[in-house]
Amino acid sequence: MAPSFTKNRIEAFSDGVIAIIITIMVLELKVPHAADHDNKAGAALTDLAPLIPVLLSYLLSFIYVGIYWSNHHHLLHATRKVTGGVLWANLHLLFWMSLIPFVTGWVGENHFAAAPMALYGVVLLMSALAYWLLQNTILRVDGNHSVLGRALGSDFKGKLSPVLYIAAIALSYVNTWLAGALYVTVALVWLIPDRRIERAISEDQGKRTEKH
Amino acid sequence: MAPSFTKNRIEAFSDGVIAIIITIMVLELKVPHAADHDNKAGAALTDLAPLIPVLLSYLLSFIYVGIYWSNHHHLLHATRKVTGGVLWANLHLLFWMSLIPFVTGWVGENHFAAAPMALYGVVLLMSALAYWLLQNTILRVDGNHSVLGRALGSDFKGKLSPVLYIAAIALSYVNTWLAGALYVTVALVWLIPDRRIERAISEDQGKRTEKH
Amino acid sequence: MAPSFTKNRIEAFSDGVIAIIITIMVLELKVPHAADHDNKAGAALTDLAPLIPVLLSYLLSFIYVGIYWSNHHHLLHATRKVTGGVLWANLHLLFWMSLIPFVTGWVGENHFAAAPMALYGVVLLMSALAYWLLQNTILRVDGNHSVLGRALGSDFKGKLSPVLYIAAIALSYVNTWLAGALYVTVALVWLIPDRRIERAISEDQGKRTEKH
Amino acid sequence: MAPSFTKNRIEAFSDGVIAIIITIMVLELKVPHAADHDNKAGAALTDLAPLIPVLLSYLLSFIYVGIYWSNHHHLLHATRKVTGGVLWANLHLLFWMSLIPFVTGWVGENHFAAAPMALYGVVLLMSALAYWLLQNTILRVDGNHSVLGRALGSDFKGKLSPVLYIAAIALSYVNTWLAGALYVTVALVWLIPDRRIERAISEDQGKRTEKH
Repeated sequence: MAPSFTKNRIEAFSDGVIAIIITIMVLELKVPHAADHDNKAGAALTDLAPLIPVLLSYLLSFIYVGIYWSNHHHLLHATRKVTGGVLWANLHLLFWMSLIPFVTGWVGENHFAAAPMALYGVVLLMSALAYWLLQNTILRVDGNHSVLGRALGSDFKGKLSPVLYIAAIALSYVNTWLAGALYVTVALVWLIPDRRIERAISEDQGKRTEKH
Repeated sequence: MAPSFTKNRIEAFSDGVIAIIITIMVLELKVPHAADHDNKAGAALTDLAPLIPVLLSYLLSFIYVGIYWSNHHHLLHATRKVTGGVLWANLHLLFWMSLIPFVTGWVGENHFAAAPMALYGVVLLMSALAYWLLQNTILRVDGNHSVLGRALGSDFKGKLSPVLYIAAIALSYVNTWLAGALYVTVALVWLIPDRRIERAISEDQGKRTEKH
Repeated sequence: MAPSFTKNRIEAFSDGVIAIIITIMVLELKVPHAADHDNKAGAALTDLAPLIPVLLSYLLSFIYVGIYWSNHHHLLHATRKVTGGVLWANLHLLFWMSLIPFVTGWVGENHFAAAPMALYGVVLLMSALAYWLLQNTILRVDGNHSVLGRALGSDFKGKLSPVLYIAAIALSYVNTWLAGALYVTVALVWLIPDRRIERAISEDQGKRTEKH
Repeated sequence: MAPSFTKNRIEAFSDGVIAIIITIMVLELKVPHAADHDNKAGAALTDLAPLIPVLLSYLLSFIYVGIYWSNHHHLLHATRKVTGGVLWANLHLLFWMSLIPFVTGWVGENHFAAAPMALYGVVLLMSALAYWLLQNTILRVDGNHSVLGRALGSDFKGKLSPVLYIAAIALSYVNTWLAGALYVTVALVWLIPDRRIERAISEDQGKRTEKH
């Protein structure tokens, strides 16, 4: 069956890119080594202190990329037909996600300063819009009465996130901790499992299995 | 079915390499950090200004690699038989594509200077020739009357691109903006979806489905 | 069959991340080049001497990541059902494993100093706990009477490893060689093939094949 | 069918690691940028001159890794049964192959000096032995009368390569150009397509298809 084959390859490629994005971020955790500033060995636990904000920003971005991977997984699972438009909407999402390691590194190295925190929100916002665009492209191809259409329903989380990102971007210049708290909040909102798509899919599979 | 298995593995490997190529480029976007030149924090938005040409060249190359991935996807989808020749023509294409991150970084760091712009075109030209070679190797194995043969037809875009690359390489030493405009033009020409292969495949699938 | 499809994509994504983790570590083996300290060429075998501890720590971590990949492979092979909980327990494991290249580099560059050796154990301990959590999440979904439940049995190795890691972390500050010996011991314990799961799976497959 | 599933995942993981190995090497081609030694822009074609040996060694290693991938592809294609031993023989091969980017970088940066050239041969030799070990592990499991056993026959190339590597390692200290010529020779020997395995497989598939 050719269409599912095409879908498989989009998934494989996306998995590859997302796997690299999520792992590249760890390269920002640079080993504190001997020759850095003086000739001391950099082998004490205290040498890791400057890495703590890098680790925290890595953790948050790891969760975000994980959420995107998980949602992307469910979204394409529910997809029936892949067109050139879907393919490019997917690449567009991967482009914005590929900037996450950069802004994560910038946030981490500058201990959550205002401009990096704001730019972090901009990249998350653009990723969210790209995801929304991908979702709508798929819906337009598959039709609103498809499994996906029923599953998404009101898409509350998808509509809430951009609003919170915009608030966090503005707040970055007021209080970076508030901005950070908003980023953590959005991550938590998404971590709560979205059972709607899963349920709709398993209902649909139930029906299809009965027909076989 | 063994041949499709072989094809799957070429696709999986190509997807892996292309996914790494497209993501490695983002590593050129280096976080502007504290210890770079003086001890200032590098946390202002203005610190990102030197990264703008790097980002622009990344965007263009991302689109180019995306186009290659999309065309490669369609090309192999329409392929029936994979031989050792196809396998090496594919590796040859991946070799030239693997140089794209290097020339992209060189262009970006030197703000679109003449020599980097020309070399960018050389790598794109070699990739285009390698793609053309892969396509012809597959055609020779599958036969001109195959789905692919019918789908490609005159292959206008494939013939136009090398001409424009050569023009851009020459123009790099005259006016880099003209060269840049040509690279953007080729990308746009390819972004316009090529429905021929898609249509020919779905027709063919229609016929094969009827036979089942 | 949708559930196995979901499983395939978790495996593909995990394979991607683990493949990157295992390969990224080799980047710590930095080419000793001309401009490093003086203008000598760095082309003698003796220039590699400082890389020996880096190579040794790379080898040990390569084996650890290989063990995780192998066990992960068997674990998911025996899994029937994938839920959102399984997906996140898996991402949680990948997060801790993604820190292995960092601690490996820190250990290698500091010639097995106390703090890096202890942190190496902490990351291995957290990875082991994350693996245990993933295993239990899958068991809770699949049920203790599943293939996996029977296969794991007492899970002796899984219970022994964390104890040895904790001992090694404490020993790092007493004698780093003892700590290192413990890390090597745990790796050897796991390298001895665990035939239980393999046997239980092939028994189960035997039964299922008979039913077909 | 569970065994083929297991095989698929070994292939997918190996593809991932080999794809990263082949692409990581390109990172040694470092963009010659402004701040390197003085404040000149590094944007002339002559700035690329020191990169030529890096590019040449990259090209040779790219071909070597490509040969390994192609042979690995055929080897596993002909494999029927995967055991824990096969899995670890495969990881052992990937370990040695993962050192290829390091020795390639060392050779390239030192313009084919004696010690790097010798070490390059050592890593190729160890990779060849690891491949031979993997092949034999699979043969022991599958039996000499398997497709693979018939296909390999005398395995002339597999026996010739280690001899030539050892000669090249010794010659590195006499004349590096001779050593280099030997490495190029081995690559060419392997590039000539090995039709034996392909033929044996297609014969076997012919027979199995007849039985269906």
